[in-house]
Amino acid sequence: MAAHSLDVELPPVYCPLESSLHPHVHDVERRAVQWIDDSGMCASEREKAWVVATHSADFFARFAPVADDDRLLAAVQWVYWGFAFDDARCDSGPLSSRPAQFNALAGQVQRACETGLAQPEDRYARALQDITRSFRSFAPPTQVARFVHAHRAWLSGVAWQIGNQAVGRMPALDEFLSMRMLAAGGFPTFALLELATGAEVPDREMHRPAVAALTEMALMVASLDNDRHSLHKELSRGHADQNIYTVLMAERGLPLQQAVDEANGLRDRVLRRFLELHDRVRPTAGADLATYLQGLRYGVRGNNEWGLRVPRYLSQGHWPDEMEDTRLVWADEPSDLRPGPPAGAPGVAWWWDEDLN
Amino acid sequence: MAAHSLDVELPPVYCPLESSLHPHVHDVERRAVQWIDDSGMCASEREKAWVVATHSADFFARFAPVADDDRLLAAVQWVYWGFAFDDARCDSGPLSSRPAQFNALAGQVQRACETGLAQPEDRYARALQDITRSFRSFAPPTQVARFVHAHRAWLSGVAWQIGNQAVGRMPALDEFLSMRMLAAGGFPTFALLELATGAEVPDREMHRPAVAALTEMALMVASLDNDRHSLHKELSRGHADQNIYTVLMAERGLPLQQAVDEANGLRDRVLRRFLELHDRVRPTAGADLATYLQGLRYGVRGNNEWGLRVPRYLSQGHWPDEMEDTRLVWADEPSDLRPGPPAGAPGVAWWWDEDLN
Repeated sequence: MAAHSLDVELPPVYCPLESSLHPHVHDVERRAVQWIDDSGMCASEREKAWVVATHSADFFARFAPVADDDRLLAAVQWVYWGFAFDDARCDSGPLSSRPAQFNALAGQVQRACETGLAQPEDRYARALQDITRSFRSFAPPTQVARFVHAHRAWLSGVAWQIGNQAVGRMPALDEFLSMRMLAAGGFPTFALLELATGAEVPDREMHRPAVAALTEMALMVASLDNDRHSLHKELSRGHADQNIYTVLMAERGLPLQQAVDEANGLRDRVLRRFLELHDRVRPTAGADLATYLQGLRYGVRGNNEWGLRVPRYLSQGHWPDEMEDTRLVWADEPSDLRPGPPAGAPGVAWWWDEDLN
Repeated sequence: MAAHSLDVELPPVYCPLESSLHPHVHDVERRAVQWIDDSGMCASEREKAWVVATHSADFFARFAPVADDDRLLAAVQWVYWGFAFDDARCDSGPLSSRPAQFNALAGQVQRACETGLAQPEDRYARALQDITRSFRSFAPPTQVARFVHAHRAWLSGVAWQIGNQAVGRMPALDEFLSMRMLAAGGFPTFALLELATGAEVPDREMHRPAVAALTEMALMVASLDNDRHSLHKELSRGHADQNIYTVLMAERGLPLQQAVDEANGLRDRVLRRFLELHDRVRPTAGADLATYLQGLRYGVRGNNEWGLRVPRYLSQGHWPDEMEDTRLVWADEPSDLRPGPPAGAPGVAWWWDEDLN
């Protein structure tokens, strides 16, 4: 993609979802930054500066605006941790094209996540244990187990992505969507909703196919939005890595601008289906499921409010800039009004199943 | 290990657990073999002969002796499938030392497991969809979701093992135990218990740390027993791959016979703790949890009754031999009576936590 112009036009984001922000976000951010210091997970001041500059407190305070402060803090710690781990060990670290080594690290990190008693060597794994001990101190085992499963799903997606990167394999659209949905970290991020809000969605509601589809759609939209947020940075770095644009360009032989438009249409169709299914499910939801579903809505919106401004995606220098206070412009209408599942994506077609319940 | 004598002495197995076998095992086996034919998952007659010779019907009919026949059939299909996939795509197939390719295949197989609508190219992935559609036809979404999570855990362990194999990395004991517990396939196998028996263990019971520990301990014992079952075959092939014996030999500088004895002691300590914790948990268990716990007991016993006789571990030729009808001799006492967690295995030490509840 390095050959392509940087002046590609990104259409405004269609996102008719509620916006909110936790009132104590600054206090929680201060406490989280102190924890990052204390945890010893960062190897250098620059590494720490970039972790702090993810503004993960701002990010997740938008997902869970009504959380108890201490619960929000623990959730926010994980988000900082996740970005830090991603940068140091996944996306751009020395393991980013070494799947054998990454698989072993992921296994040990996951085990650290499951048990407070393991003694991992990796500094990130130790910090993660600290966070999950916190989760266990305030959340029931079911909610922690859901987070743990979601965490494994994320790492499996990163392993998949790293494997493709290692052998120079550009996935087809269908494979990419399944992989990206995992690798972007949406599963553990949305699993934090119950931990942060204290909602305890009963199993029979959480595993309803319609609720599973809503979760997957919310995180797919957020994942594609993240590809959008980081496009300019990727272009400026000359990266030709797997994202929705490179995948569409390769699969359909498209120029970048057309891939951007097609990706936007695909993303809007998923969001439209999310909105439609949400409105069908919400009236039948118990109170805790309603809290969770609202969290999905806040999350998709908040991810944009954060991602369109955060130095993680905007700063290009050696040290991060300040977070921008840009006024955001939103699209009034979805860019693609076609019904049913998008072509070439059978792995997600079940979201449009009419009998979904 | 090729340099070591084949006449290593394997002590008898300590296994004071109930033995049982489903009365319709032969009929279920016949139907499953027909399905293997129809599914098109095997590429050759020889591949099919080895899959059939896993006697997966005999295996799982010991885990769920009281299951409804159709449910048992679906569970048994997955076991055949799992062994077939393991042989063709994991343990000894062309991907056994290609982690990048395996990660991508595992991702697609897992997605096939999650959704009946994906259209995977791989013949194993298609057969798996057929099985999970069956699960969905008779089991609630929660039980299917548990199986799906367990399935991902298994594949993550295989990816870990394949990565180590690719770079010639022999894991330390602690890492090996975490990896083996996943890679041996015990999580999905025990997740079949609810699907086969129709038990629906409530979330608050299934995720109790004590119940999670019992599941992990049962499958750890079964995994180590499988290392034992396949030792002679591995030795005869000159494999020096990761198993409890090669790991102990490498970590502690032991000769094979001593590694066998240490492994046996370690395994017996886990089983002793399982028995002790089981007896504490069982009286407080609801009916469905009791069915599940009994399934763990049947499973550990049945895995030995099957594994000590099955051609998968005993036949050495190009085609599998018949299943042996050996009379099994069991140890009367555990070989290691020391209390508490074994040294060098912090990742599993929590099983011995006195407050486990």
